[in-house]
Amino acid sequence: MLLGSIEAGGTKFVCAVGNEKYQIIEQETFSSKVPEQTLKETVEFFQRFPELDAIGIAAFGPVEVRLDQADYGVITNNTPKIAWRNVNLVKTIKDAIDVPVFITSDVNGSAYGEYVAAKQRGEKIDSVVYYTVGTGIGAGIVIDGHFIGALGLQEMGHVKVKRHPDDLAFGGLCPHHGDCLEGLASGPTFEARTGKNGKNVPLDDPSWDIMAYYLAQAAVQTTLTVRPNKIVFGGGVLSPKFLDMIRKHFDQELNGYVDIPPLDEYLTMPEAENNGSATVGDFELARKVLIAGEGHAFAIDR
Amino acid sequence: MLLGSIEAGGTKFVCAVGNEKYQIIEQETFSSKVPEQTLKETVEFFQRFPELDAIGIAAFGPVEVRLDQADYGVITNNTPKIAWRNVNLVKTIKDAIDVPVFITSDVNGSAYGEYVAAKQRGEKIDSVVYYTVGTGIGAGIVIDGHFIGALGLQEMGHVKVKRHPDDLAFGGLCPHHGDCLEGLASGPTFEARTGKNGKNVPLDDPSWDIMAYYLAQAAVQTTLTVRPNKIVFGGGVLSPKFLDMIRKHFDQELNGYVDIPPLDEYLTMPEAENNGSATVGDFELARKVLIAGEGHAFAIDR
Repeated sequence: MLLGSIEAGGTKFVCAVGNEKYQIIEQETFSSKVPEQTLKETVEFFQRFPELDAIGIAAFGPVEVRLDQADYGVITNNTPKIAWRNVNLVKTIKDAIDVPVFITSDVNGSAYGEYVAAKQRGEKIDSVVYYTVGTGIGAGIVIDGHFIGALGLQEMGHVKVKRHPDDLAFGGLCPHHGDCLEGLASGPTFEARTGKNGKNVPLDDPSWDIMAYYLAQAAVQTTLTVRPNKIVFGGGVLSPKFLDMIRKHFDQELNGYVDIPPLDEYLTMPEAENNGSATVGDFELARKVLIAGEGHAFAIDR
Repeated sequence: MLLGSIEAGGTKFVCAVGNEKYQIIEQETFSSKVPEQTLKETVEFFQRFPELDAIGIAAFGPVEVRLDQADYGVITNNTPKIAWRNVNLVKTIKDAIDVPVFITSDVNGSAYGEYVAAKQRGEKIDSVVYYTVGTGIGAGIVIDGHFIGALGLQEMGHVKVKRHPDDLAFGGLCPHHGDCLEGLASGPTFEARTGKNGKNVPLDDPSWDIMAYYLAQAAVQTTLTVRPNKIVFGGGVLSPKFLDMIRKHFDQELNGYVDIPPLDEYLTMPEAENNGSATVGDFELARKVLIAGEGHAFAIDR
């Protein structure tokens, strides 16, 4: 089996082909500044593999992933990447390469990769939530091997949280909600709070603890709503020490209210090798769409 | 088909038998103060119907609903109803009445009833969230016709929310979390804020608006996480006018960030007749367990 993966990011497309053991056979990265150019390079990459069986796409967005929508496969008008508005990723790929395609969000692709990789390691896992914390905050969910969302993709970066008592003067950066989670805990909030880029803010600066407090609340919300087997935090803002700060607040906020696995197994950083969660997820989604056929919006494998 | 329903509440058990159109044939209510007595009356009620095919149970809790757990069917040690600790509802019923049984939480039963009733009315519905706001706050979720929860049932009453600026002095009533949603927006908070029972607090009292603000945030969290087709608010605190206040805050907080149906269709009160959401849900869960057999924890019908 020869499986394709497109990690379609706002700054680059990572294209790969691999086998059903999720081993990468070849991989190339293209800038995503100019859609026509990026898509041409993407198509040409996959055309070099005439044996290709199927492609999984994990895309920035918002992207329409519901099969019954007229704009299925399209990066919608709401994307901040103006050049990509109304670009139909699925149609462009399928018109050039006649294989089954499965598309989901970038974070869902990563969540799925973590789900698959955990299964591969022999962990008992049914459900996983994946947060990415970088210039924004996004989250993907896999429940019993499926994606969810009757009305579209998750946008859990924009939930409200209890304000930290030492952070009340900060209005938050979200243009839509001010002090939602993304407005309070994404990477750019370092600049706003301290005047420095996050890379230059030492971990004992209070701004880290404030952000950990907010992210811990998000993890509590997700714990009490989804009851997943684990919650993964990825993205440029994360580090093992910062994750420990999140764990500490999470423990205080949840206060033992529901049973969860040991914290160091429950709240983790991505465990797929080489930052490859989304690629592993894409490969497996490609395998699934090859087996089940297109038309299963939620990667059914119950 | 003769289907059984047990709405096992902390103050009363509502037992019913009905048909596959969810029409109640007979119904009786028993006090739930003394478990032995209540369970005896419950069993005797159903023993009057030797044709009974299956029973659905929607239970107060926390109750263990995961089939692979040793204490499946048990009201756990965490229940505030001390007399009911470690009572095995499923075993008690099945030992006396030899039919397939499906058990879920009271709020999941209501969510399922709303899901089924909406389908019956011809609504396009895949997923529904049901909040009950009374002495506590609980919530149930149906996603694509299934219940979820790899690690157990939802406890969405205990999420944190952004504090209302006029409510900062109130510490909240939750013994576990202080100012979680339940601690801030359940019925007893009227007494704590105003010294009066909620029934005697006029709707223009600011405490109503504060509670609506918190419940709206919960609905936003759920909207961005689950993307359900609708969110139902039930329980003694709800009224059409209070729901309108929740809608107003919801609209402000979501700020159009994701597409939802018109607000009066999206945020509703229970629409199953005669306060019968859980009974309808139980009947359908009984029908499902009869068809699919026991062993399907999540009422699979994808």
